[in-house]
Amino acid sequence: MFFRTNKYQFDAKPERPDPVFAKMLQEPLGGQWGEISVMMTYLFQGWNCRGPAKYKDMILDIGTEEIAHVEMLATMIARLLETSPVEAQEDAAMNSIVGAVMSGSRLEDVIVAGMNPQHAIVSGSGAMPADSVGFPWNAKYTIASGNLLADFRFNVTAESQGRLQVSRLFNLTQDPGVRKMLSFMIARDTMHQNQWLAAIEELQAEGLEETPCPSNFPQSMEDQRVSYQFWNCSGTTESGEGRWAAGTSPDGKGQFEYIGEPQPMSDDTGLLGPVDTRLYGTPPAPVPKKAAE
Amino acid sequence: MFFRTNKYQFDAKPERPDPVFAKMLQEPLGGQWGEISVMMTYLFQGWNCRGPAKYKDMILDIGTEEIAHVEMLATMIARLLETSPVEAQEDAAMNSIVGAVMSGSRLEDVIVAGMNPQHAIVSGSGAMPADSVGFPWNAKYTIASGNLLADFRFNVTAESQGRLQVSRLFNLTQDPGVRKMLSFMIARDTMHQNQWLAAIEELQAEGLEETPCPSNFPQSMEDQRVSYQFWNCSGTTESGEGRWAAGTSPDGKGQFEYIGEPQPMSDDTGLLGPVDTRLYGTPPAPVPKKAAE
Amino acid sequence: MFFRTNKYQFDAKPERPDPVFAKMLQEPLGGQWGEISVMMTYLFQGWNCRGPAKYKDMILDIGTEEIAHVEMLATMIARLLETSPVEAQEDAAMNSIVGAVMSGSRLEDVIVAGMNPQHAIVSGSGAMPADSVGFPWNAKYTIASGNLLADFRFNVTAESQGRLQVSRLFNLTQDPGVRKMLSFMIARDTMHQNQWLAAIEELQAEGLEETPCPSNFPQSMEDQRVSYQFWNCSGTTESGEGRWAAGTSPDGKGQFEYIGEPQPMSDDTGLLGPVDTRLYGTPPAPVPKKAAE
Amino acid sequence: MFFRTNKYQFDAKPERPDPVFAKMLQEPLGGQWGEISVMMTYLFQGWNCRGPAKYKDMILDIGTEEIAHVEMLATMIARLLETSPVEAQEDAAMNSIVGAVMSGSRLEDVIVAGMNPQHAIVSGSGAMPADSVGFPWNAKYTIASGNLLADFRFNVTAESQGRLQVSRLFNLTQDPGVRKMLSFMIARDTMHQNQWLAAIEELQAEGLEETPCPSNFPQSMEDQRVSYQFWNCSGTTESGEGRWAAGTSPDGKGQFEYIGEPQPMSDDTGLLGPVDTRLYGTPPAPVPKKAAE
Amino acid sequence: MFFRTNKYQFDAKPERPDPVFAKMLQEPLGGQWGEISVMMTYLFQGWNCRGPAKYKDMILDIGTEEIAHVEMLATMIARLLETSPVEAQEDAAMNSIVGAVMSGSRLEDVIVAGMNPQHAIVSGSGAMPADSVGFPWNAKYTIASGNLLADFRFNVTAESQGRLQVSRLFNLTQDPGVRKMLSFMIARDTMHQNQWLAAIEELQAEGLEETPCPSNFPQSMEDQRVSYQFWNCSGTTESGEGRWAAGTSPDGKGQFEYIGEPQPMSDDTGLLGPVDTRLYGTPPAPVPKKAAE
Amino acid sequence: MFFRTNKYQFDAKPERPDPVFAKMLQEPLGGQWGEISVMMTYLFQGWNCRGPAKYKDMILDIGTEEIAHVEMLATMIARLLETSPVEAQEDAAMNSIVGAVMSGSRLEDVIVAGMNPQHAIVSGSGAMPADSVGFPWNAKYTIASGNLLADFRFNVTAESQGRLQVSRLFNLTQDPGVRKMLSFMIARDTMHQNQWLAAIEELQAEGLEETPCPSNFPQSMEDQRVSYQFWNCSGTTESGEGRWAAGTSPDGKGQFEYIGEPQPMSDDTGLLGPVDTRLYGTPPAPVPKKAAE
Repeated sequence: MFFRTNKYQFDAKPERPDPVFAKMLQEPLGGQWGEISVMMTYLFQGWNCRGPAKYKDMILDIGTEEIAHVEMLATMIARLLETSPVEAQEDAAMNSIVGAVMSGSRLEDVIVAGMNPQHAIVSGSGAMPADSVGFPWNAKYTIASGNLLADFRFNVTAESQGRLQVSRLFNLTQDPGVRKMLSFMIARDTMHQNQWLAAIEELQAEGLEETPCPSNFPQSMEDQRVSYQFWNCSGTTESGEGRWAAGTSPDGKGQFEYIGEPQPMSDDTGLLGPVDTRLYGTPPAPVPKKAAE
Repeated sequence: MFFRTNKYQFDAKPERPDPVFAKMLQEPLGGQWGEISVMMTYLFQGWNCRGPAKYKDMILDIGTEEIAHVEMLATMIARLLETSPVEAQEDAAMNSIVGAVMSGSRLEDVIVAGMNPQHAIVSGSGAMPADSVGFPWNAKYTIASGNLLADFRFNVTAESQGRLQVSRLFNLTQDPGVRKMLSFMIARDTMHQNQWLAAIEELQAEGLEETPCPSNFPQSMEDQRVSYQFWNCSGTTESGEGRWAAGTSPDGKGQFEYIGEPQPMSDDTGLLGPVDTRLYGTPPAPVPKKAAE
Repeated sequence: MFFRTNKYQFDAKPERPDPVFAKMLQEPLGGQWGEISVMMTYLFQGWNCRGPAKYKDMILDIGTEEIAHVEMLATMIARLLETSPVEAQEDAAMNSIVGAVMSGSRLEDVIVAGMNPQHAIVSGSGAMPADSVGFPWNAKYTIASGNLLADFRFNVTAESQGRLQVSRLFNLTQDPGVRKMLSFMIARDTMHQNQWLAAIEELQAEGLEETPCPSNFPQSMEDQRVSYQFWNCSGTTESGEGRWAAGTSPDGKGQFEYIGEPQPMSDDTGLLGPVDTRLYGTPPAPVPKKAAE
Repeated sequence: MFFRTNKYQFDAKPERPDPVFAKMLQEPLGGQWGEISVMMTYLFQGWNCRGPAKYKDMILDIGTEEIAHVEMLATMIARLLETSPVEAQEDAAMNSIVGAVMSGSRLEDVIVAGMNPQHAIVSGSGAMPADSVGFPWNAKYTIASGNLLADFRFNVTAESQGRLQVSRLFNLTQDPGVRKMLSFMIARDTMHQNQWLAAIEELQAEGLEETPCPSNFPQSMEDQRVSYQFWNCSGTTESGEGRWAAGTSPDGKGQFEYIGEPQPMSDDTGLLGPVDTRLYGTPPAPVPKKAAE
Repeated sequence: MFFRTNKYQFDAKPERPDPVFAKMLQEPLGGQWGEISVMMTYLFQGWNCRGPAKYKDMILDIGTEEIAHVEMLATMIARLLETSPVEAQEDAAMNSIVGAVMSGSRLEDVIVAGMNPQHAIVSGSGAMPADSVGFPWNAKYTIASGNLLADFRFNVTAESQGRLQVSRLFNLTQDPGVRKMLSFMIARDTMHQNQWLAAIEELQAEGLEETPCPSNFPQSMEDQRVSYQFWNCSGTTESGEGRWAAGTSPDGKGQFEYIGEPQPMSDDTGLLGPVDTRLYGTPPAPVPKKAAE
Repeated sequence: MFFRTNKYQFDAKPERPDPVFAKMLQEPLGGQWGEISVMMTYLFQGWNCRGPAKYKDMILDIGTEEIAHVEMLATMIARLLETSPVEAQEDAAMNSIVGAVMSGSRLEDVIVAGMNPQHAIVSGSGAMPADSVGFPWNAKYTIASGNLLADFRFNVTAESQGRLQVSRLFNLTQDPGVRKMLSFMIARDTMHQNQWLAAIEELQAEGLEETPCPSNFPQSMEDQRVSYQFWNCSGTTESGEGRWAAGTSPDGKGQFEYIGEPQPMSDDTGLLGPVDTRLYGTPPAPVPKKAAE
């Protein structure tokens, strides 16, 4: 069960409104690699966890923290969409969304062109669970397979893509209040990348999982002729110059082999049998008209 | 530019038709972690690559191989949906899709109940770019950020989730022809997990990227107070027993710290300014009716 | 069966073209709370209606009217995207979409930046069944549950959200022709809010449904200990100051009770059983490698 | 900021596994009217709230409670997908997902046909944020307009549709453990319907909003000729027999009028101007070939 | 503006309920090539039409007829989901949806496994605007480009795919009432295929459009070296045996040429310039850490 | 199986960067009628083909060529998003994405307002498999029914809509490098329209399929009373002036008949039976409260 306090994990206060940046900041809120994605991913991984208790507890703790991150971003966006106290006194008509449109001056044209119109029409200057082009968040961004190594690898990815996007956004604004919050989030992403890498170490140290994942499928049942071969599917061989083309494989179980001119291992040419005539697919040769009785 | 041969990379021949398993086998074809996803992900990562040539070439080579995997799975599904030569002679009416429905016997009821109806109505006993519940593939499954470490971490994940799903499917069929193809694919996933892990090693060895990713954002600009803290957001402390709660962090740059009873670092309570009255949001107190002039 | 006349329910004539507002006006056409949504919702509610004939007839009548609203909006948008007669004579090159791009002057830059590019590339200056950020309409916006109270409550919502959005759009344009049409639509939404509220009254007066909906589920079978409790899931108690925290409940069947410090009613901690080893989920402790035979 | 306890709000323990019902129970978890929808809707309404503090606090409190409902449902589904302790001893092969498929007996055929294959292949016997046909949850189910009356009307709808669906599901299972949890949820929905109805009363009592919503748009600016007219768009007149066709409107501001044979109020026939020839739309008459210079 | 009569275009009466076929029949209602798709496509093509009046009128007439087809299918599905009068007397418990589940006998298991659970839980035995796997209809199925030849070609396709699917469904049921309605729809699709083919003839006869479409783009500005070449991108040459490999092209403007061993026409190898370092993409060689000031 | 060469089919080199046009150029890459759509459509049609070998080979050859088109567009977009060599020397800060935002001058405001923010935040100046409003490509754009006539009609449409969109884009840029590539693509679309028209001729000449499609459904089983009737569903009769209203139908099997004032052919008024009371739909009259036992 969950509880909340009305205090925020960290400040979410911009120095001044900026509806164009508000649009951009939707990406780490409701985008594929945003905070809703990690919140939902960690909560579902935790609830579905059938492994040791410390993992379940750890996953749910970070999932719970992420709700607070969603909260901060939503609030920051809502504030970027409102008239700032200072500007309000000077020229409310020009600095609010409606004012910008109605005033018709050039700066406002640009604002209107660059902002997300749904911030005015749909949410009434509130945040939305959507990304920077207005595409709604969806649950395909939630990954929970039941295999913790496969999932923790996803989590490292999510914290990497997320930190990458927030770092880019840091460079796309000069507002000190926004940057302060982003620097907090970047730091938490540093922790969370490290956390998931540490959890992967732990999983392997405890013998619960290893590469190739899932390790409990007997490797003797895979087609071991091709388990460590690199297939060069082009005429050029620059792909042969990397670590992946020779030497011991990272799982320590094989030697990489570079196949410079790979050949099909099959004579199968993909020919299919004839179609059931009652499905009206095109047959190899004309057939009588027919319907089921 | 691309070319093809009509030979397949590997056999895609089931021993007998099985429309219910055909439905399940759509997952590694058109599902989130299926072959279309890795094909598109690797091709886009390659085309967008601005790093050293050997990476670009390697990524595109594997992307090209994945087209052949899509080809094998599509063909296998089409064959699982057709009447097998042997059975056709005995009782065509009962073994085809339409026959199963029309015959009305109990076995056929089960087949109809369990198969994907679009395999009959929409594709006419062909494969579809959709998953095992019929949800169409979409390009959000394609990840290409321009940062190779963030992306290679995704690729390791994709090969892990993919190998996990194919291993599960191996256990859900007894058809020797299907299992033969799946064992080939599982082996290629073994290679590809190793390949991306090796590529991550190489990226780091060459000084191009490291943890925390992206490493070119100056860590001095993140809020370093919280860069290595675990926040325990629950009343229980089992999350404190893992590798992530103490010791040196995997990036070698910090010491994990376990915050057992974390407190908000802010007095921000999320209060927002008043809404522009012409947006008709609910205000703190009644306001006059108004429209823009 | 349906018929049409080529006369419009009301004028859909802007005074001059405005491609940026055309983008915004897609929201009440193809957005979540737009006219396509109510058209489809009412038609499906009507066709699926198993209640008294007067409801079925009424629902289908309003559904039919909504097709005319879709028609007006689509036409208005197409006209906002075309070169106006007056301007065409003066400077056709600059006022059409292509002209705006090619001329390269600043005003045109702004127009191009702010318009929906699909209005040029995809629809060739026609309306599209999509919203103001180009997200396509989808049938999840269609609600028809078979329970008329649940559905009429949705309908009141739809007419409220719709009227809210159109009122906001009224403030975002100064074109007299556009405003004239919007004021007609706002008036119809006034009617339709009242209509659904009246229909809810009628349903209850006739004993067909009441709160809590569905009223035909025996309330004796719900866990009546918590049927009228407010759970305060935060440390603050401002939520205790409202109508919902004390007094008789609106259904007249209970007394609101404010639970200031709610506690879990269960000792369930969510622990799950072990996973089937052939699904390769992470187990509590290492298990032997295994595949189905 | 958010915290959790590892105790559940209520028991989520089925008496025995039932993968077919697990599929159905995804609807109130990840469906359009499920618990994720209300959780996200209330949290976003709360974070975006610019009205009086008691509303913001109340909305966030119920949003926080809903996280616990998501938790219960996810756990219940995961348990419905696992082998029960008793059955495991008797016949593990037949009662688990993989066992059911491999054993090939008729009961298992039915289970496989009726369950969601992604519960085996994708989530490894865990819950997913998707509905009963496997369609992923998406953020369009989250409604937060900034206008509390419009939104509370949605909330009443959500609690009505949700209670309706859970009541139907109560009738589709006989498992006492499942029914116990559903009866708790039905009771909470009773409270929440009442809560939002009470909040609507309060909003109106405080003069913050009323019908027609939004009430701050001056009704004098709508086309008042049609504000209270019912248009009978069919040849039949059963729609004239209801409360909505005569008498004072529920907002108390008008008299319903029944228009039995409505006529278009416009001579507009929807004719459009010619297309810019460089967009290659079909013109009224042939034009010269042309491209921009 | 639109009107309706309560008479149906044609009978929509099944002989008996069949929830499994009801699921399948969702495809021609709410599937990609179903009646909602053509209804919306034709209406939008008509409203956006800037060509001669007879086309606009014709397109809107057929669009209006399609609403009646949606109506018939929705009603048929609702009836397939209800208890038939005869069976109701004998054994209501077993023939309704809930009864089937609760009775627990084998036939009912099959029904439950094969039906769409949302027909019970969500729509309460009503039709839904979704396809046979429950995927909701979306507006990407609506095509209206402003170019009537491009669009009429789509319309011919839609009537072909639609007639194909309905013909398949005819073979998947034996209910005389259902077949009667389907045979009506198949006949209308015969008309509509012919209608769009005739309209294409007319467009060309009137000089409004021709192949290659759009014909108003000057063909002199395309790269005419490759305008009539077939590129054989495989090692096999069976593709050289068809009408498309030699002879005059159907537009009468060129001669097909078969390129047996095509070569790239460019030396471009796709190398990209370096990334802006503040976007943190992987560079060709290590760069200093950096953030925008 | 597939191979690639690192040479491109044609040059993909813009003269200078243009992030706003890069956004627009996403349409023919990842839009509904873009190159990914035809690539996937042709590959799936080919893999699923059960007709004569020359068709299968031809379809797969063109599908393979389309991969090269995807490659060219992706590369062109990536180059439009980068700093050009010349400009880089002069003023890197202003011409890159980040520079544009940070510099804050007016030209840059416009660029930021008009570009796709995900080109900076998500892809790091790379192409994305999405359209010009950022909507992700999805597999519903892939059509493969098993009936080659139905599918080739789709293919003609795709090449028409695609050529139309690229022609429009040609008019929306003045960059010679971009125009050069577009003129190549327009020429290939000329070929491909002709190719599919030729393939349709061939199919019919070989007796494999004809109008009405599917021709193997016995036309005697359709309701032939309405097979060649035009229903005028409006009060106006301009629709009677076209080729589709009189004369021999294009399939040569009927005579068009114009029904000026069509009447319903049924007395069905769509009334439904009562709902199962345990589904809590609204009944015709009050019923007792009830739940399943």
